Amino acid sequence: MSDFSSIDHIKIPEPALRRLPWYLAYAQLAKTQGEVFLSSTQIAKDLAVDASQVAKDLSYVNISGKTRVGYDTGLLINVLEDFLGFTKTHNAFIFGIGNLGGALIQDNGLAQYGLKICAGFDIKYELSGTRINQIPIHHIDRFFELRKQTKTNIGILTVPVNNAQSVAELMIEGGIKAIWNFTPFRIRVPENIIVQNTSIYAHLALMFNRLHSTINE
Amino acid sequence: MSDFSSIDHIKIPEPALRRLPWYLAYAQLAKTQGEVFLSSTQIAKDLAVDASQVAKDLSYVNISGKTRVGYDTGLLINVLEDFLGFTKTHNAFIFGIGNLGGALIQDNGLAQYGLKICAGFDIKYELSGTRINQIPIHHIDRFFELRKQTKTNIGILTVPVNNAQSVAELMIEGGIKAIWNFTPFRIRVPENIIVQNTSIYAHLALMFNRLHSTINE
Repeated sequence: MSDFSSIDHIKIPEPALRRLPWYLAYAQLAKTQGEVFLSSTQIAKDLAVDASQVAKDLSYVNISGKTRVGYDTGLLINVLEDFLGFTKTHNAFIFGIGNLGGALIQDNGLAQYGLKICAGFDIKYELSGTRINQIPIHHIDRFFELRKQTKTNIGILTVPVNNAQSVAELMIEGGIKAIWNFTPFRIRVPENIIVQNTSIYAHLALMFNRLHSTINE
Repeated sequence: MSDFSSIDHIKIPEPALRRLPWYLAYAQLAKTQGEVFLSSTQIAKDLAVDASQVAKDLSYVNISGKTRVGYDTGLLINVLEDFLGFTKTHNAFIFGIGNLGGALIQDNGLAQYGLKICAGFDIKYELSGTRINQIPIHHIDRFFELRKQTKTNIGILTVPVNNAQSVAELMIEGGIKAIWNFTPFRIRVPENIIVQNTSIYAHLALMFNRLHSTINE
């Protein structure tokens, strides 16, 4: 089974990687419906992706289909979960315990996908020493010390827009290697730092725009 | 000032629309730093976008810069917030009060961006009649009736993968026009229904993959 230490893993193009979670979700549903095998044709049809594309995407993960029957559903789920990193625990710190930060700390679903939030940081002194969903909240002053102790590589950025750049810089200075940026601010980082933007409020704007283009109010 | 009823609004291409929240966040930061005017050159430099691109993107919203000084920062913020739909209240229902659904209900930040969650629905009878963050939770059986009363157009989908398609179909049958899909499942909908996918767990996989490609563990 492929894992993160395999060299193969590095070569997958991002568009293919983005589609793998769709196949995983599809296989999870198929399994509950009792489907023992899944063909790439079937996956392709239901997800409106080209069948050769599905086969090619799945060629990056270590699974082979059987002629005329396809992929074993249970095996496909295991291989995809493993490949996507969901079966491993990745520790993370979260920065900014406001509305969204507080909400993400409550989302135990993240742990099912391999992300364990170990601690939260905020500039508000009244939050330090408290816990949300069992997770300790510290003043930001303690970040360097706790990062040293724990070697946590992932930082979730949920501070207000005005502080996004400065807190990102602090995170990097402390040793964070990957920033999951939930702010709408485009942070600037050195080349070796990974940034994953998840701008949920920007998605909201896209939806509003399309809704107002189709509905007369 | 442009608003959703203007015909102009419809014409903006999606990539331009996706960049507008970046300019908004940038302008919000600049304002707190006392910058009264912002030039497209300055915005472009700091956000690593082409300057002519910034000027073109901003030509879709109803604002004009002054020669040699640029856009009035405060006005730019107002016009962008208005154009992006953040100043209007859009009512929404949320379907699936599990980890992520429960977390989103707690996120008061959504209201600042124009989204008001009015009610939550779940299949669990023990949740019905409860409130989370003041928002009433109902059994899914009450959805048709409450949708009729409120004419709510937006549905947030946070059910487990296995129920994503069937709940989406129920939402549409009840009259929902736009689905904000937080599940990793690619739901299939009729052409006139708007789907905005926000696959936060898929983003997590992208980040894990890039992290493991750069760090040897």
